[in-house]
Amino acid sequence: MNLILLFPVDYVAHDVVRLRGRRFEHVVQTHRAKPGDRLVVGLAGEKIGRGEIVSIGDESVDLRVVLDSEPPPPLPVTLVLALPRPKVLNRVIAGATSMGVKQIFLINAWRVEKSYWSSPRLSDENLRFQAILGLEQAGDTILPSIAHRRLFRPFVEDELPSIARHTRALVAQPGSAVDCPRRVDEPVTLVIGPEGGFIEQEIASLERCGFLAVTLGDRVLRVETAVAAVLSRLF
Amino acid sequence: MNLILLFPVDYVAHDVVRLRGRRFEHVVQTHRAKPGDRLVVGLAGEKIGRGEIVSIGDESVDLRVVLDSEPPPPLPVTLVLALPRPKVLNRVIAGATSMGVKQIFLINAWRVEKSYWSSPRLSDENLRFQAILGLEQAGDTILPSIAHRRLFRPFVEDELPSIARHTRALVAQPGSAVDCPRRVDEPVTLVIGPEGGFIEQEIASLERCGFLAVTLGDRVLRVETAVAAVLSRLF
Repeated sequence: MNLILLFPVDYVAHDVVRLRGRRFEHVVQTHRAKPGDRLVVGLAGEKIGRGEIVSIGDESVDLRVVLDSEPPPPLPVTLVLALPRPKVLNRVIAGATSMGVKQIFLINAWRVEKSYWSSPRLSDENLRFQAILGLEQAGDTILPSIAHRRLFRPFVEDELPSIARHTRALVAQPGSAVDCPRRVDEPVTLVIGPEGGFIEQEIASLERCGFLAVTLGDRVLRVETAVAAVLSRLF
Repeated sequence: MNLILLFPVDYVAHDVVRLRGRRFEHVVQTHRAKPGDRLVVGLAGEKIGRGEIVSIGDESVDLRVVLDSEPPPPLPVTLVLALPRPKVLNRVIAGATSMGVKQIFLINAWRVEKSYWSSPRLSDENLRFQAILGLEQAGDTILPSIAHRRLFRPFVEDELPSIARHTRALVAQPGSAVDCPRRVDEPVTLVIGPEGGFIEQEIASLERCGFLAVTLGDRVLRVETAVAAVLSRLF
């Protein structure tokens, strides 16, 4: 937690927040903070700054906050991800958020197992929590929007064209003949398939929608590694 | 498992291997393979190819293998990593291996907690297993060498200079003024610090040894995200 993310509900006075639970424990146990110490804080959707510890109780800590800096800039990317295995989903959401992704669609694909869609990890509450972890890691305050689309074709044919309009439309596919471009200067819509990649018909659908299949090389990477590697190469 | 990694001990005839345990279960349960099916295989340290299933027993499967292709090229990098939290260590080793890293040093640093060094995950056996998972993921056969060095200064002063000789020597440090270079054409020695970064004295030691501190931006990334992001930008 390189930044303590605050929400309007945390305020108990116009510049004082009271933290309990996970954030309280983090301040007390990890930072071993004492009154007067200053920690990096940020208000969700707003600026970042510092919080000075005013008092520490048994179950809560009060900080007086000053918010005066902009959060780091977002990546100009919409990430469209074939729903990963539940075990991997949390890390992918937190990782992508930490890198500055602000719009994520989780979609179906042939090689996405049906059971993944009934995982409790797909709840709005859990996705939001993973995104918060990513923001706290990266020192950011702007939560991404995360949506899911259970049907591949309607999404790709009806919705994706307008998402991808005026962006560079790329799908990362192991074995593609085209290298992933480096340092692009425009917004990107980036589609990343399931472990094992998209099937041919899915790639064809994406290509009809204007997407170019690109690769990072011969190596098939885990989803969370691929997301970090492609984003880092693109921006 | 995009490749089944074989070892000399698996051979029961000059071109037949017998797999039990984890690899047997993978063939039977994940691939739902039957006699005649072909799977991607590779011999540790050697070529990759195909294994045709000859027979499936209750506890083992026999494959006839042909090894005729080179594994994907390695990355020309030596990765020097401040020992991550045990929970993260496995993923970092598997992830770096999947990207093609062949030489890894796990080192101490001020912000590495002492307790990390007594984690059972640091055993040679576990590190080797995580590297195998990375090779199986990426379709590679060449195991990385993984060493650990418990003392920062002797390593940096006595050993690192010869490791880094004739390479581009970089240390990834959040907040550095220099952007991480892109697509370098030479071997790299890449040092990545603990969560929270190296302390000033450690950066100074590395700089005296010829290292340049570089950054991916304002965002502090988790170690596994940072490793993937930096490697992908460099190569």
